[in-house]
This record gives sequence, C-alpha cells and structure tokens, in this order.
Amino acid sequence: MLPFTHAEKVRVRYCETDQMGVVWHGNYIAYFEAARTGLLHAMGHSYRAMEESGVMMPVVEVGVTYLQPAYYDDLLTVTVEVRTPPRARMRFDYTITGSNGEDIATGFTILAFMSRETRRPCKPPLLMRQLFGLEPQRSNNHN
Amino acid sequence: MLPFTHAEKVRVRYCETDQMGVVWHGNYIAYFEAARTGLLHAMGHSYRAMEESGVMMPVVEVGVTYLQPAYYDDLLTVTVEVRTPPRARMRFDYTITGSNGEDIATGFTILAFMSRETRRPCKPPLLMRQLFGLEPQRSNNHN
Amino acid sequence: MLPFTHAEKVRVRYCETDQMGVVWHGNYIAYFEAARTGLLHAMGHSYRAMEESGVMMPVVEVGVTYLQPAYYDDLLTVTVEVRTPPRARMRFDYTITGSNGEDIATGFTILAFMSRETRRPCKPPLLMRQLFGLEPQRSNNHN
Amino acid sequence: MLPFTHAEKVRVRYCETDQMGVVWHGNYIAYFEAARTGLLHAMGHSYRAMEESGVMMPVVEVGVTYLQPAYYDDLLTVTVEVRTPPRARMRFDYTITGSNGEDIATGFTILAFMSRETRRPCKPPLLMRQLFGLEPQRSNNHN
Repeated sequence: MLPFTHAEKVRVRYCETDQMGVVWHGNYIAYFEAARTGLLHAMGHSYRAMEESGVMMPVVEVGVTYLQPAYYDDLLTVTVEVRTPPRARMRFDYTITGSNGEDIATGFTILAFMSRETRRPCKPPLLMRQLFGLEPQRSNNHN
Repeated sequence: MLPFTHAEKVRVRYCETDQMGVVWHGNYIAYFEAARTGLLHAMGHSYRAMEESGVMMPVVEVGVTYLQPAYYDDLLTVTVEVRTPPRARMRFDYTITGSNGEDIATGFTILAFMSRETRRPCKPPLLMRQLFGLEPQRSNNHN
Repeated sequence: MLPFTHAEKVRVRYCETDQMGVVWHGNYIAYFEAARTGLLHAMGHSYRAMEESGVMMPVVEVGVTYLQPAYYDDLLTVTVEVRTPPRARMRFDYTITGSNGEDIATGFTILAFMSRETRRPCKPPLLMRQLFGLEPQRSNNHN
Repeated sequence: MLPFTHAEKVRVRYCETDQMGVVWHGNYIAYFEAARTGLLHAMGHSYRAMEESGVMMPVVEVGVTYLQPAYYDDLLTVTVEVRTPPRARMRFDYTITGSNGEDIATGFTILAFMSRETRRPCKPPLLMRQLFGLEPQRSNNHN
C-alpha cells in the first residue's frame, strides 16, 4: 500500500514569478498544497470533507530545497508521497520536476491533526486510519 | 466629518513583483485592503472586532486603473476615502502614490454588510452607523 | 472569427481562501490571468513567446463584480472572451462559473502593448494582428 | 559586529489568512523576505541596489517551524539574524513573535550569490564583503 503517491500537474501562473524572472520561491508551498489536495482525492478521500467533518490539518513544519528555477507557463509535475502511516502527525514528501523531467525542487511538510471545534490536537479521522490499515475497514463504516 | 480618509504606508515586497520587473497588478487589491484596515483603526474602529461581533464585509465590486508601475522596495502611500455614509453597501476610493508623489494607481471597492451567522445581508453595525452620524451617539452604547 | 473565447478550468487552492471561508477576492485576478494564458495557447499563440520576442502586455485597467462566493477545492470555469480586435489596447472579458454552472463573478481587463526594450507603447505584434485579420497571413511569415 | 540583526514589524493582512482563520503558512516566507530587506537597509546596504549592480540572491533552501497561529491584524515582529559571514552562500535565521512576545514561528533561509548577467554563481559583492570585514574598507571604494 505504502507509499501513497500522486503526481499533480501545475501550470505556472504569471503572478507566481518575481522580478528575477523565475517562480518566486514561496509559491512552491502552494504547489505542495495543491498536490496534497490531489493526493487525498486520489486516495478516495478529501481534505475539504475532512475539515467539514471537524478535523483540520495545520502545517507544523515545512522545508524546501531549490535545485533549478521554474518559469512562467512551465507545466510542472508535483509528486507527493506519504511513506509512513500518520500518527499524531503526518509527513508528506515532494519532488517538483519540469516538463523535461529535470528536478526543480524537493521538500516536505509535516501536518498535525486538530479538532476544528476545540482547536486541540486529535487523532487522524477514521477514514484516514482505515486508508493506512490502522483500523479494520468495514463495509458500513461511519467516520 | 466626511470624507473619512487615511494614508497607509506600504513597502513593496519582492514577492509582489512579477517578471515584468514591477508590482504584479493583482497585488494592489491587497494594498487597498491594508489601507481599509488602517482607515477603520484611524476611525477608532476595527474590522477584526467587527467580524468578531458577527458582521462581515465581503467585497462585491472592485476596480483599478494603473497609471505608473511600482517597484520592489518602493514606499507607497495608499490613501483611502469614504465619501458617503454606508447603507446596504459601503464604498471606498483609493489613490496610490509613489515616494515622489507621483500617481501609481487609483481604484475603488464596494463592500456589503453580511451577518457571519446567517450569511445574509445585514445593516451596518451600530458603531459604524454612529461614526457616520446615522445614529445618535450615547456615552454608554453597546453595539 | 470573433469573439475568440476559451474556458480555463481552475481548482481553488487552500491558500486562496481567507478567514471568511471563501476565495479571497483578489485571487480572481490571478484566475483571469490564467485564463488569458490559456486563451493565447488556444489561439495558437503564447504570451511567453510574445514577451520573449520583445512585446509585453501590462494591465492598465481591471474590474470585477462578485456574485457568489467560491470555495476551497471548487473546480471553477473561467471563460475569457476577446470581442474586438486589439489596437493600442486589448480588452478581455471574463465569466467565472462554479461546477453547477452558477455565476461566481464577472470581470474585464484592459492591457496595453509595450516594448520590452524601450518600455514605451507599441503596436500589437504581427502574429497577433494576423490572428485578428488585421494583416494578411502569409505562409512564411516572420514576426 | 556579528550577528547582524534586525526586527521588522509586519501587520497581518486579511488576504494572508486562510479558511482555518489563521495566517496561511506559506506567507511566513514573505515575512522572512520583508525582514531580509529591512536588515540590509539597517546594515546601510540595499538588496535593490545589489540587484541593480548585477548581483542577485536566489533562495536555495528554506525551512519553517510553526509554533502558534497568527491572526489577521496582528502586529508581528520578524527578527532576522546573520550569524556567520557570507561565502558562496548566506544564511539568515528568523524568529517571529506576536504582540505579547509569544513565539509564532522560527525558520531559516539560505541564499546564493548569482550574477544577473551570466546567471552563474558569483562571490558576494564588495560592499557585502566589507560589511562582514572580509575586505578592508577604504573611504573611496567602488563596488
């Protein structure tokens, strides 16, 4: 099962460049996030649904290493992987490649699980635990 | 009393430029917003407190005319004016000038009043109505 | 031939929301821009190539009317139209609709043509003039 | 002399929040950058002037640890430090604190020196080397 992986295509927007003529480095954080949304969809889950059901995932740590610049109108591939089951926290690793397969950047984010109501840490929701085999999967589960 | 006016200083950030070497045009909307926050503070009010008390002000219309480019590290002055008392909606007009007084851009935003709970239109909060002389001001008012 | 039109799909990113729980209004400007990039591709042109050949298109005016909120993870359709041939300036009109076809926002942008070298106004590049039938199209044209 | 340090005040903008009701985590990268600009000003230098003189500083690595959320309208203090003289690369460390002095986030960025013309690595500009005592300071120096 592990790692869960997903490749999200991202077209660089003009507004994402800076006066150096390349993608502004902070925007990679948004690309990571878009890939994370795509991964959860690919896993049959949805971060939007998770928040609506009361569990939020704030980011507690992020790291990015920049290898090559990316340019306006580039079609990037943002590959995200989850290599270990989530516990109190969940780690995502990323690789961004250009249209010729060249490495643009690598990075990771660590997210926590937090109750929307109490704003306190909580455990991963049932569906997430089931996806990682941390709970038996029943046909009529309710999260 | 009218117009209420406020001049907000904004230092252009590197990330706000694009590959044309100037401030990306969409960022002026954020500068307008910062000036609006400053205006409400200058009026003895606070948009944050207004939201916490249950009234939100979504933007329903925005317009910007771009006259001269602005550059990284420029210290801009964003002047905002409210020329007419708010009713169902409230209009703000803006002028952005550079450090030599040259006009960079002009614009306006129209905002509505909306109940945070019902997400339906509502009237301006009491404190706002008092600021514009639409309600008598009492020493022991409660909003 | 006219209007030239294109429908660009945009998935709302988490970072594009604000604490009102909806897409922050300034981000529609970035959606418009993404649709513009897509339109030029659909016309067999490329804004990136145009800049590389020495012609930039700074935005000189923008307007947006907000009709309904958009939410994180929504798949929006940003339809862009060019209704009249470009002259010194070029106007684009936009409609943003949600996944159920409901109108989210409408807007327009007016862009100028500017020489990258002189930073002075210039006329639309040859390929653009040909696309709009303002110049005869020859098989071996060079822009 | 070392460390060089600077405290930049940043007022959180509404557009910098997300639907979690807090500052979106990627925006801290922009706050770091604003503090870096401020630090160079405080050192009698200017990143803008450095770029104009032909040396750019692309970011090659960034890391952020999030400790507490920040909110709209908060007045944050972004403290930046340079603890070691620059060589091929230059490291900046950051601490963001809230108005009550509570720690919001910590982080670092590593930047390279790059010639604007060749887009190849280069050594720090003379003024920068002098600021760190890597070159003797002469009254009539020309960078």
